[in-house]
Amino acid sequence: MLSLVDLRTRIEAGTLTPEGAVRLVEERIAEREPGVGALAARDPAPAVPADGALAGIAVGIKDIIDTAHLPTQMGSPLYADWRPKADAAIVSRLKSLGAVPLAKTTTSPFASLDPTATRNPRAPGRTPGGSSAGSAAAVAAGMLPLALGTQTGGSVIRPASFCGVGAIKPSFRLLPMVGVKTFSWALDTLGLFGAGVRDVAHALALVADRPAIDLGASEAGTPRIGLVRQDFAGAAEPEAEAALDRAVRAAERAGARLREIALPEPLPGAWARHGIIQDFEARQALAWEYAAHRAALSEKLGGQLDRAQAITAAAYDDARRHAHRARRVLKDLFGEIDVLLTYAAPGPAPEGHGSTGDPRFNKLWTLMGVPCVNLPVPGEGPPVGVQLIARFGDDGRALAAARMIERGLAEI
Amino acid sequence: MLSLVDLRTRIEAGTLTPEGAVRLVEERIAEREPGVGALAARDPAPAVPADGALAGIAVGIKDIIDTAHLPTQMGSPLYADWRPKADAAIVSRLKSLGAVPLAKTTTSPFASLDPTATRNPRAPGRTPGGSSAGSAAAVAAGMLPLALGTQTGGSVIRPASFCGVGAIKPSFRLLPMVGVKTFSWALDTLGLFGAGVRDVAHALALVADRPAIDLGASEAGTPRIGLVRQDFAGAAEPEAEAALDRAVRAAERAGARLREIALPEPLPGAWARHGIIQDFEARQALAWEYAAHRAALSEKLGGQLDRAQAITAAAYDDARRHAHRARRVLKDLFGEIDVLLTYAAPGPAPEGHGSTGDPRFNKLWTLMGVPCVNLPVPGEGPPVGVQLIARFGDDGRALAAARMIERGLAEI
Repeated sequence: MLSLVDLRTRIEAGTLTPEGAVRLVEERIAEREPGVGALAARDPAPAVPADGALAGIAVGIKDIIDTAHLPTQMGSPLYADWRPKADAAIVSRLKSLGAVPLAKTTTSPFASLDPTATRNPRAPGRTPGGSSAGSAAAVAAGMLPLALGTQTGGSVIRPASFCGVGAIKPSFRLLPMVGVKTFSWALDTLGLFGAGVRDVAHALALVADRPAIDLGASEAGTPRIGLVRQDFAGAAEPEAEAALDRAVRAAERAGARLREIALPEPLPGAWARHGIIQDFEARQALAWEYAAHRAALSEKLGGQLDRAQAITAAAYDDARRHAHRARRVLKDLFGEIDVLLTYAAPGPAPEGHGSTGDPRFNKLWTLMGVPCVNLPVPGEGPPVGVQLIARFGDDGRALAAARMIERGLAEI
Repeated sequence: MLSLVDLRTRIEAGTLTPEGAVRLVEERIAEREPGVGALAARDPAPAVPADGALAGIAVGIKDIIDTAHLPTQMGSPLYADWRPKADAAIVSRLKSLGAVPLAKTTTSPFASLDPTATRNPRAPGRTPGGSSAGSAAAVAAGMLPLALGTQTGGSVIRPASFCGVGAIKPSFRLLPMVGVKTFSWALDTLGLFGAGVRDVAHALALVADRPAIDLGASEAGTPRIGLVRQDFAGAAEPEAEAALDRAVRAAERAGARLREIALPEPLPGAWARHGIIQDFEARQALAWEYAAHRAALSEKLGGQLDRAQAITAAAYDDARRHAHRARRVLKDLFGEIDVLLTYAAPGPAPEGHGSTGDPRFNKLWTLMGVPCVNLPVPGEGPPVGVQLIARFGDDGRALAAARMIERGLAEI
């Protein structure tokens, strides 16, 4: 994989130019893209700024994120060749740091559940996950050092786990959603994919303009880690359980204090109501597409919106109150612990390409708005990750804990 | 003015058809629009549904709200003739109720502070206010029975007060913002303008699909009203003070219990930080426009964005924490009182067209996300309103109190 931090180190040392770094990416794309199918569009002649903290970094932009210079097709024939007027706020921010929005990456239609044709570079014959399929796969294939995704259920952390890459779904609205196609405004969250945790930590600190996010592993201190199995979401598969066990041993070895925590109500109740909030809002967010073009919608999305028509405003208001109470209980919980450690996905990527996998271990955290990191856990077989979670606004702490465990994993 | 409730009553009684109601609006537009200049675009051959709870109601859509069938120009030459792909969620919702999105209404560029060319139909020579200038003026001129605006500082309640129409800025995110150009995602709120309070109450209950919002005056009970002068925002002009005094007398006459309340910290502190949140987000929301087209931006907006470049993430995070604490204090305050009564604007519309007026009595409430109603107070001279405010999610209570005072005003 291409490490953003390594590329930037070489550029700052003068052994690589920004143009050279982008050329390297273009060579990798020429080599790998035919077999992966991660890209929806590509800038054939990108402008490469000479300066900026992310100069030379080519970025993949999930194709529900507006770009003025490239089509934004939402993974749907409804938006074939659609050209927005303006760049999304996050694209403008990347440009201002010198980064190059080189390509659009494949997405499930409107970032929902229908699979894309993208292959998983690390697990042949298995889904790369979704909805941010192309961003996870492009980074995993070594085609791009940085890519943007979005998560409404588990669309950042799950594909990162399936493809074995680093990723963060930051605190809700830390990154601006302006110009990102809405599915559910209370849930949709921009996230970053990179080769490893330090890469996404470095990128997030720069993009969010909050330097304190980029802590090293040594700055994690002696974190109090709460081990959470999310029983209310069902059992994990043996591979995910094994990855969690390895992460626990690595954390203990690295000096963390762990204890198992059962999440009290109203947290399981909030988890159970995630879909009510998501689908009641999706029905409004995609009302034009549904009313004017129902027959052109993909199969799973069409059915999801059909069912969503029956959700009442009262059920939605109740679900939001439940989520509000759950956020306060979770905040109190973070008085006793520093980070939570849990599954990133139920197991490795499912075989075949009929499903993008199950977001059931991700939904609660998206609804709570708290930062989530995928830490790949090295092992045999297809990739599996674990998930580190911190309190709202404490993105740096989740990242530092992940790096601490990553270092422990290298030792066991 | 055209009352939405009156039109609907006639349609339901069979004495007016939906087509007839739209034709009536078209005649009013032909008559008044040349002198008012409230419309940015108009559908020359609107489809008029025969059914629906808002069938026959022609609606004005502020021109920062996406419409697939009409240009969406943001009040800026940058977006001249721009045609979005899809309708905004609120436009789809109106259509599904049978309403007719007949026209786009003028807006300050990107809903900021630069004036439009629109005239105030009720106060010749004075601004109609902004940024929702066209929506307020079109309703005041009797051209439209319903119009959409948005408020980030005071862009719904202030023009409603200046033009003498009913309006509500509902609870934050009660109405969906998908497809509405963002200025500040933490503040931007869709609102409704109508001939009177009962018209906007009826419309909001339908559009938000929450029937309980449409309470009559008689259902207000004996509300405990807190009279708030917002001293931290400076003094009001004599005309606004006189309107508030009349509203107080009308409320007492109608049976409400009033007491004056001084808002404690952190509420004044949150008020003082409104601009930090607004401008830090506007700098991101309009980053493409600023980076690629700075010279084409209007005067006040350009300067505002120039200054916004200096706001730090730390100042923004501090302002958000302050607002969060203030929301909790305000929530506690609403344990002791039912609604707040305060100025809608510092006075009548300023003379001339160089300014859209001052939102200083509106900003705190936008930041708190609580529902605000403009109640026009009949009197001599240019229009002045008062503002009724309820707790988050209690839109019906603010509307019911406004109708109760309205009835009292008719008696004194």
